[in-house]
Parts: sequence; structure tokens; C-alpha cells
Amino acid sequence: MATRARVGVLGASGYTGAELVRLLLRHPRAEIALLTADRRAGMEMRDVFPQFSPYALPKLVSIDSVDWVGANLDLIFCALPHATTQKVVSAIFGATPAARIVDLSADFRLADTASYAKWYGHEHHAPDLQKQAVYGLVEVYRREIKTAHLVANPGCYTTCAQLPLLPLIKAKAIDLDEIVVDAKSGMTGAGRSARESMIFSEVSEGFHAYGVGGHRHMAELDQEFSRAADREVVVSFTPHLVPMNRGILSTIYVRGKRGRSAQDLHAILLKSYVKEPFVHVLPFGETPQTRHVRGSNMTFIGVAKDRIEGRAIVVSALDNLVKGASGQAIQNMNLMLGYPETTGIEQVALFP
Amino acid sequence: MATRARVGVLGASGYTGAELVRLLLRHPRAEIALLTADRRAGMEMRDVFPQFSPYALPKLVSIDSVDWVGANLDLIFCALPHATTQKVVSAIFGATPAARIVDLSADFRLADTASYAKWYGHEHHAPDLQKQAVYGLVEVYRREIKTAHLVANPGCYTTCAQLPLLPLIKAKAIDLDEIVVDAKSGMTGAGRSARESMIFSEVSEGFHAYGVGGHRHMAELDQEFSRAADREVVVSFTPHLVPMNRGILSTIYVRGKRGRSAQDLHAILLKSYVKEPFVHVLPFGETPQTRHVRGSNMTFIGVAKDRIEGRAIVVSALDNLVKGASGQAIQNMNLMLGYPETTGIEQVALFP
Amino acid sequence: MATRARVGVLGASGYTGAELVRLLLRHPRAEIALLTADRRAGMEMRDVFPQFSPYALPKLVSIDSVDWVGANLDLIFCALPHATTQKVVSAIFGATPAARIVDLSADFRLADTASYAKWYGHEHHAPDLQKQAVYGLVEVYRREIKTAHLVANPGCYTTCAQLPLLPLIKAKAIDLDEIVVDAKSGMTGAGRSARESMIFSEVSEGFHAYGVGGHRHMAELDQEFSRAADREVVVSFTPHLVPMNRGILSTIYVRGKRGRSAQDLHAILLKSYVKEPFVHVLPFGETPQTRHVRGSNMTFIGVAKDRIEGRAIVVSALDNLVKGASGQAIQNMNLMLGYPETTGIEQVALFP
Amino acid sequence: MATRARVGVLGASGYTGAELVRLLLRHPRAEIALLTADRRAGMEMRDVFPQFSPYALPKLVSIDSVDWVGANLDLIFCALPHATTQKVVSAIFGATPAARIVDLSADFRLADTASYAKWYGHEHHAPDLQKQAVYGLVEVYRREIKTAHLVANPGCYTTCAQLPLLPLIKAKAIDLDEIVVDAKSGMTGAGRSARESMIFSEVSEGFHAYGVGGHRHMAELDQEFSRAADREVVVSFTPHLVPMNRGILSTIYVRGKRGRSAQDLHAILLKSYVKEPFVHVLPFGETPQTRHVRGSNMTFIGVAKDRIEGRAIVVSALDNLVKGASGQAIQNMNLMLGYPETTGIEQVALFP
Repeated sequence: MATRARVGVLGASGYTGAELVRLLLRHPRAEIALLTADRRAGMEMRDVFPQFSPYALPKLVSIDSVDWVGANLDLIFCALPHATTQKVVSAIFGATPAARIVDLSADFRLADTASYAKWYGHEHHAPDLQKQAVYGLVEVYRREIKTAHLVANPGCYTTCAQLPLLPLIKAKAIDLDEIVVDAKSGMTGAGRSARESMIFSEVSEGFHAYGVGGHRHMAELDQEFSRAADREVVVSFTPHLVPMNRGILSTIYVRGKRGRSAQDLHAILLKSYVKEPFVHVLPFGETPQTRHVRGSNMTFIGVAKDRIEGRAIVVSALDNLVKGASGQAIQNMNLMLGYPETTGIEQVALFP
Repeated sequence: MATRARVGVLGASGYTGAELVRLLLRHPRAEIALLTADRRAGMEMRDVFPQFSPYALPKLVSIDSVDWVGANLDLIFCALPHATTQKVVSAIFGATPAARIVDLSADFRLADTASYAKWYGHEHHAPDLQKQAVYGLVEVYRREIKTAHLVANPGCYTTCAQLPLLPLIKAKAIDLDEIVVDAKSGMTGAGRSARESMIFSEVSEGFHAYGVGGHRHMAELDQEFSRAADREVVVSFTPHLVPMNRGILSTIYVRGKRGRSAQDLHAILLKSYVKEPFVHVLPFGETPQTRHVRGSNMTFIGVAKDRIEGRAIVVSALDNLVKGASGQAIQNMNLMLGYPETTGIEQVALFP
Repeated sequence: MATRARVGVLGASGYTGAELVRLLLRHPRAEIALLTADRRAGMEMRDVFPQFSPYALPKLVSIDSVDWVGANLDLIFCALPHATTQKVVSAIFGATPAARIVDLSADFRLADTASYAKWYGHEHHAPDLQKQAVYGLVEVYRREIKTAHLVANPGCYTTCAQLPLLPLIKAKAIDLDEIVVDAKSGMTGAGRSARESMIFSEVSEGFHAYGVGGHRHMAELDQEFSRAADREVVVSFTPHLVPMNRGILSTIYVRGKRGRSAQDLHAILLKSYVKEPFVHVLPFGETPQTRHVRGSNMTFIGVAKDRIEGRAIVVSALDNLVKGASGQAIQNMNLMLGYPETTGIEQVALFP
Repeated sequence: MATRARVGVLGASGYTGAELVRLLLRHPRAEIALLTADRRAGMEMRDVFPQFSPYALPKLVSIDSVDWVGANLDLIFCALPHATTQKVVSAIFGATPAARIVDLSADFRLADTASYAKWYGHEHHAPDLQKQAVYGLVEVYRREIKTAHLVANPGCYTTCAQLPLLPLIKAKAIDLDEIVVDAKSGMTGAGRSARESMIFSEVSEGFHAYGVGGHRHMAELDQEFSRAADREVVVSFTPHLVPMNRGILSTIYVRGKRGRSAQDLHAILLKSYVKEPFVHVLPFGETPQTRHVRGSNMTFIGVAKDRIEGRAIVVSALDNLVKGASGQAIQNMNLMLGYPETTGIEQVALFP
């Protein structure tokens, strides 16, 4: 049997942390060597996530108590809350400059630290590290990720919007000033924190938009869409909450440019992703459902003709905890450690 | 005590039929005198909807067995499947020309019978009756409804899209060529028919769009929006299914015209609905949730500024079985019978 | 129009508080004169429960700021957390000895203050008031409630277990040593507090028992069952959480005594409740569903024969926020104020 | 790489069929060589289960069209509706006497064909085959399964009840005349057939018991419990439906015999299952949740003391589609083909 990389998960008591553990427990080339959870330090993983009761796992420790040199980790996943990661990552690199980190927070996603300060309301705590950070959308930055020491794993909403839109933007196939992204997410996207607005009876049997007009994910979209278009692109983006655990669906309204029909757009996407293991373009006219990617690292994309001449509707779906977070993070790890990209994240979707 | 109108409900074994019975049982001016359900004829209402076990209700009969003259009904609700109602309504008016009917199906909503034939795939069976039919969106056609003999109760999706958009269109405040309506509905909108795609495990824990590019509700929207604008208006409309029972939420993307800001649009809506008992416009920047209108006849509307200059996001929410169907039907009945418009439909929303 | 009683709701920002407001807004003999919510004092009700946006309601105030004499209330509902009510009620009676209070907490349900101390872990703060308190299970204590000044509204689980069992116990028709109550509740039963175990993703798509072997509701059951039997009765009781908002269903396993068959038990229940407006016994062999009492003050009870000779299965269902809390509280108010018992709580169940 | 067994799935368009495909696609020793679905013959698997779109799978064919000799299958899973399997299995053995079959229906679970006729209302169609059939509860019949040609995979409810009860019965540790099994299942247990009672709006936001007093699963329980006790055992068993997709939880009420305490019962279970890979006994006093075994082949069992002296409450949870059906079927396959028992069914539970 091949050797296993020693892997740490910082923030193991949250949902993306637990999802990393779920996937890593069956990853043939990884060994879970460290689990941290500051508020639960000293507890067993089974105490915070009983589904792991049958498995042997390291006890939860606090981040401060970790000896980064002694831990001898080949790769570290940071699944910590936004705004706390910059300092942690600085500390790790301070102790072990050769460390390799995949960060699942938003802390290193914005290349422009001024933009970060504007959207997040405070100065960036590690501007030098930001320069080394590689944006971890594998399908776009595969080459850069392989040698990166710090990968900023993309957000769930933004992965779901970028995968269908980037090829169309790059191909100059759609009007850049009229893109509307209507996004719907399951509740795990909001994390595991106990807020009144998240309790079952506030969420079940209802539907609503939130952050209308100004959601933080927009900065990340602006950055990547503008890079791809080589001009400023600002899309209209509205997130909604669905009474379900997992899944994001984006309904994207676009207008073809220079005579591109909906079918032309479909052809562009089909060609872009024909070799990608985790992006699947459905036949023209079919659109995806979140349930059919649940638990898997797949993104499904569909394209249909709008009845308004010249317009098309593009729909994409992924599991926010897998391709939108922990699955993509392991995809990044596989690249960074030289493993086949699909190792350990080939689970078939769980439906029903 | 005031006398009660004798009321019939055709199609009492469906969801809109049951919702009519729920509301009529507490309506102080109505008496349920007739309930039909062809496939369940001979059964008690409690056998098809056990929640009615404690109440005395007429036994279910088949439509064919009804003696329309002898039944002596003051008003008839047709809650029958689309495409079967035209013949039934013809038969009723044949027997009792003075009958008064509120039809909850789509059969009499399109004034243009050619448009009907195009969207529904067959000739209209009662083109003469169509001429008398009044479109039952109370907030717009209140005057005509009062004296109508046949009222076509609007669809749930279309009520939810029309209430926020009509005042903006009439005020020439938005660009008519760039309206996107992204609509999300609970499952009762699909009725009570047993289809594989509707069983719990196919619907729960997931989200999807359907009828992308070409849904029948569009014909009704085209008709009313074009009437209001006095020119042809075609909007982009995409329906989605939410794993919940009740509720529709429409997220509507518009561009202000002639310098109208989002706040201007909000002011127009606020002014339009200030006296309406069943349309409530939230403070600027707030957007509604379907759960807060559940079980009530209310429509909540919110307006927020998009971050794209000149654009606004309008969000509306209603209960598809109440304001989107049976509540609005009783609102129509109240007008037709000269009762105060809010009689019997003043229930406060059930949340949580 | 008849005059309206001035009513106060203490704890209006919780679920039972909101449910009281929902029902009182349509109660023809009550006027909401006071709403308290300590942590939300100064806010409008619509800020904590947007469904009330269209209605005029008093602003939320803190309990300490209330002038009990000046408030001039005919009746006060306490919908406060367990263990805080004893002191509040003492203060109210201190200021206005003629006050009339319906308390929805557990604070005054146990006649034996020693039993209270044992189950709740602290001394009773108002033992003298406890002596005056009447246990508010209307179907049993109707006469005492009419003149009471302090009514202890029963718990939701216990109402659901008592209504089917008390008549059988009183009739000495079942073995008292072998009663098993397997109870299942929707999530609103746990209130509106933000705890990790209550967030949507922890609750959705799953089912579990809790408090196995020792739930506080047992004290209340012991008290009432023992009173009814005139000997000590201890039942096995296990609560479970269902991923739904509203509803409790109790599956109760009993053995007939002295030859009583399941059908005999059914006959006893049928006879006991034939005149009760809010308890409905289904035909023999049918069992109820929580959804068919949702939003209503009804309790449905069914009895079926077990295949084990001599045993029966009794199933009861109610809405924990209505008959299990706020609806029953208004039923108590109606009695206390001399109104017809069903006033304002005749809503038909909302299904689907 | 080791060779892969050629495997067929009959009834691939149902939920247990799809679950077999999900698991077999990642099974390192199996190759899906045949998929049948009579009503969908000629379609691709992706047309009936879109989650399989990215995978290459055989086209769906009808059973009648299969050449059993030419198909050259090492093992066949029958995931067909109850009462149709006996004839299909007869036909397969008729064509290929050395075939090896795991049947997921109830058709071969009852050794006594008279009992079968009584519970299922018709004569057994293959009484001779019944004699060869081995009951496929791996933890009990591991040895017999290894060499069996026809394995009757246990039912989901019955697996969930047997795993906690059989060791207690065999140890003569509990009173056999007072066992109550209160079982709760997710909706996939009812299969994929389109019936009104199964549509989303009939199931969501509610809870109910069904088949009270006489469910078919009881025959299977009677058989296995009586075998284990070496006398007739009849338990009280009531199934309920939970508004969730997957999972069964059984709350089991027992009385210890000959002084056995709840802790003694826990010790018996702990010892019985210490080496079992798919049965996990929680620490004393803890009880399981269905969500923590979702998608996995695990059974979790907990034991708590009842407050009634001498009684205990045992709670078990499993995923009805995995350990309750397809996962257990593959566990059987692994034994029959000589693979390590856990091969391909080691997925960690998906939570949240």
C-alpha cells in the first residue's frame, strides 16, 4: 500500500471540518493526524459528531496547543470561521515555512487586499501571504495549485456561479452587463453556529432571499469574472435559503452576444468540460437538481433557451459542502501532493 | 345573524377545494351546500381530508348528478383540473343562466381564445362564455368583478408576479424589455395528483427549476402585463420547486427607467397599495419570507437596491393556496355577493 | 359589539407568545393591551415576528417597566421560560391581588412543591400561590377554572397523553403498571432559543429520542394519572423529535383489564368526549395524523386492537402550540371570563 | 487489480435498485453487467436517476429479454416488488441452476410457506426454492450465507428490531411477553411508487402511525424471535412515517428477567457486537439518531434505564436503504463471493 500523507484539519467541529473527516477517512492516501476545535478541545470527535463513533480519530485539541514542527503534517486544511484564519496561517508558516495549506475560509480569496478591507470591514492581517495565495478553483488554476503552498479554496456560491459562467465570459459569448445570478442554497452553507434565524422552525416550510443587493460573495465573483473578461464585470447576485441541508442551485440569466444562441452557449460549456471529472454538462434543454449531486464532488450544468429571443438560462448545481467546500479542498490537496486528482472524492451522489 | 349564501365547491377533493372548505367553514356569510368530487363521489369529505372529521359537511357527489336548478346555489367555485372546466361551466350556465361562478382553473383566464389554443394545445370549448369572463385579480378589476357572472381567478405564480409589477409597469417606471422573474413555489402548487416526481423522496432535500424557457403561466403574464403597458411585454420567467408545502416567492430583477431609483419604485408600490387589505409593502430594503404569509390571504412585497446602478430587486411572497387560489376566490365571492371584501379571509398567518 | 377584555401577553417574542397573538388578533372578545419581551423591549412585534407587519399592536416592553395597576388588564398570559414565572406571578398578584393569570410555563403545574423541587432542581419560589393554582386541563377541571385566579396551563406532551388515558384510568379499564407512552413532537415544542442542537441542519432529515428514561414532563403525568387512579401510577414515557414544526403524536400501549377489549376502550373514550368541542375520537381502528390538527385546537384520538390478545394501541394527536399551549390557554381564558368556551379558537386545521 | 464479479440488478429503477448501483459503482470487486427495469426498458439509467449521468452503465432491459446463460452473471440482486420475485427466481434457477441470488423482497423470508400464504394472501409460488433459501441477516447466519445460492435479504424494519433484540432473547435476559417495538421510518421505505398518500404535501410537516395492529413485517419478526427463543414470541410492533427520506429508528421497551438491569442488557449487546463491523453499541445511556448512520451500512444501538424499576429502553437506528436493504445485500454478496465482508460498503455516514 502507498504511504499516506499526514493531514490536519483545523476547525473539525464545523460542517466543512466534519465533511473533510468524512472524505479523508476513506481517502487511500491520507491519514488524519490532527484535529483541532478550540471550544471543544479535549473532546473526542464522536462527542461533536456522533457519526464518527465507530472510527478511531485523534482527540480534538486547541490550535494554540499544536506544535507545528512536531506535528509533521504534509498538508493542513483550515476550516475556521472567516476573519480568524489569516493570523493562524501566518503562525503556521512562521513555525514551518514549508507548510502546505488549503484554506476553506474567505480570508485569502481576494488578491486585492484593499477590496478585502472594503468587503470585510477590517485590514488584511497577512498581506504578504496573500501574494502567494493561489485561488483554488481547480478547473481554472490547476497548474498554479500544484506547486502552491497556500490555496484559497473558493466559496460555495461562487464555485457554483463561476463554473458555468467563466467559459462563456472567456469566449466573449455573453453580454457582460446583463448577467443575473439567482442563487439558492441549503442551510449547511450558513455553518453550524446557533443563531435564532437558523433554528429549524425558522427555516422549515418557508423560503426567502437574504443579503439582497450586497452579499460578500460578490467580491469574489467580481474578481474572477473581471479577470476572465479582462475588464470590470459586475453581476447581479441574490442568494436565497432553501429548507434543505445540502445543495446550491444557481439560475443564471444571460444574453448571447454576437448572435450566440442558447445552443451555442451549451456547446461552449460542453467543450470546456468534456474532460473534467467533476463538471458534467447535461444535454441541451435539461437542467439539474441539487439532489442529484448530494454528497458528491460533481457540478451539473444545464442550458435552456429562454423564450425571449437571444437570451438563455443556465442552471448549475453542486453540493455546497463537497464541491463547494471540502471535496474541492481535497481535490486541491490531491494536486498539491501529486495524487490523481479524483482520489478519495469519487463518491456517487446519495439520492434519494 | 345575517343570512348565509348557499355555496358549492366543485372539485372538493383537491387542495384548492379543501382550502375553500377550510375558509368557508368559518365564513360568517356562507354555507357549504354542495361538494363534488367525481372519483370520490359517495364518500364523506372526512374520508379524503381527515381534518374535516369534526364538521358536518355535505356528502361528496359527482358533477353529473347535480341538479343545478334544485341546488339553488348563490355562488359556485370551480376547483377542477385545467381543461375540464369550460364544459362544466357551459353546462351550469345552460341550466341556470343567472349562476355566478368563480373558476380557479386556467380555463377562462386568457381573453384571446387563439392564445389559449396555442398554449393549451386544444380549441377553447366555450368561446362565448370567455367574452363574459372577468379576470379576477381583485386589486385591478374590483369594479368589473362586482357584477360579473364568471370570474377567472388568477394563477398563483401570476398573482405573485403581477401584484409587484403592474404598478411599476403602469407608472412607466421600469424597462419593459429586461424584466426577469425568478419564481419559487411550494409543492401544493402542483396539486394532489400522484405522480412519481411529486412523491416525498423525490422532492425533499433538493431544489430544481422546471419548465425552463416555456411555462404555461407565461401567457397569463403576457396578457396582463401587455394590457397594463399598452404594448407587448414579454418577461423572462423561470419557476422552481421548493421542498415545502405552501408559498411562492418571486425575485424580480428590473431596471428603472428615466432615472427611477429603487427607492422610487418602492414609493410607487407603497402608494399603490396603501389602502389594500391584502397587499403589504415592507419598509425599503426589507424583503419578505413565504412563511410569514402562510395560511393568510396576504401578499408581502419588498424592494431593495441592486448594487448595479439603476437596477432594483423586487421580492413578493404569498401563500399559493390562499391569495394564490382559494383566498382570492373568496375575495372575489365577497365582491360578487356584496359582502365586505375581507369577510372570512382575515386569518393571521400561521408561523412557525 | 360586545366589549373586549384587555389582555396582556408576557413573553411575546417566543413561539407560544406569537401563537397567542395570532389567535387573540381574531378573538372577538379580546384586545391585546400589553406585550412584553425583555430582550426585545422597545421593538415592534413585527421586528421579531414579521407576519404581524400588517397589524397594529402595542410596542414590546420589559416586564419590569409595567405598571400593573395602570395597565388595567382583565387577564394576563405568562408565556415565559420555565423557572422565571413564579417570581413574576408573585409580583403581579402583589400589585394587583385580583389579577387573573393563565401561566403557560411548568412553574405552577405541580401541586406538590416537594415534587417540583425534585424535578426542577430548586425550591418553589411561590408555594402559597401554588395552593391557589388550578391545573388547566379544561376537559377535567372546567368547573374549578371558571373561578380561578391562577391557572397552570398543561404541557403539550402531557395534554396529548392525558386526554386519551384519563378516561381509561378513571374507568379502571387498563392495567396501570404496563402503560407505555411513546411520544413524538415537532420542533416548536423546544421553543425559540438558539441552541446548536436545534439548528435546521441538525434536525432535518433525521429522527431521535431524547431525555430517555427521565423527562421532566413525567412529574406532571404522574400527578394527574395518580389523582385519576387514586393510587400511584408511573408510566414509561419517551419523547422523540420529528423534523416538522408543529404537532405531537403519542402512541400509547395498554393492556385491557377485567376483559376490556380494544373496542371497549374505544367506547369509553367515545362516550367521554362526545360533547367536547376540542376532542374528537375517530372511528374504531383509525388513527390520527398530526397534520390534520395543525393550527387548530383539536385533539384527535384513535384506538386499534393490538395483535397481542388483550392489548390495545391508542394514538392521540394535537398541535403543540395550540391545544398543547396557546389555544388551550385561550380556552382557559374563555372560561375565566365567562365567554363561550370555543370563542376565537375555532380555526379549522391547515392542511396541507 | 483483482478481477471483478459480473453482477446484475433486477429492478434498477426503484430506490433499492438505485442504491445498489450507487454502492456497486465504487465496489472494487464488482462490475455492473446487467440492469433491468421492465417499465423503463430501453431507457438509460440516467433517465430514471439523473445522479448517474456521469457514469457508464448498461442500458435498462426487461427481465424477459435476458438470456441468463449468456449474461454469465456471478451474482444477481433482485430488487423487485414483493410477490413478483418468486417466479423470476424460479426462472433464473431454471435456466442457470448454479446461479447465486440475493433477493431484497419479502418473497423468500418466511421459511414456513403456510405463514407466507397467511400474511401475503396467496400461495407461495416456489416452495421448493424456499427450502434452500437462507435468511440473510449476516450477523446471525454468516456461515450459512457463504455457501447459499438464494439469500433472502431481511426487511428494513426487521433488521432494525432484530439486531438489538436477538442477543437479549438468546441470553434469556428479557421478558418475552411484554416487548413493545415502536418503529419510525423515513419515506424511502415505502418505495418509489406514485400513490397519493406519498406525495410531498401529504407527508411533509406531519407524523402518523400506519398499519396499526397488523403489519406484514410482523411475520418475519415472529419467525426470527421464536427461533432465537425456541418458543413462540409475539411482539407488539407499530410502524410510523417520519417526514424524512432515509432512516429507521426503533424504540424498544423491555423488562429485564431474572434481575437483569438495563446495564446488564447493555453489557450483553456490547459483548455480542464488539467484533461486528456494522453494528455499533453506544455507551450506556446514550441513544442514537438516524442522521448519524445516513448513507452508511452502520447500525447504532443504545440502551437506557427506564425510570420504572426493572425496565429498559433500547433504541436502534439504521439507514433503511443501506443496512436495511442494499448495503446488507452487498454484505451478503461479499460473503457469497468470498470477499472481505466490508468491501465497498465502508462509506462513512453523510451528516449533515
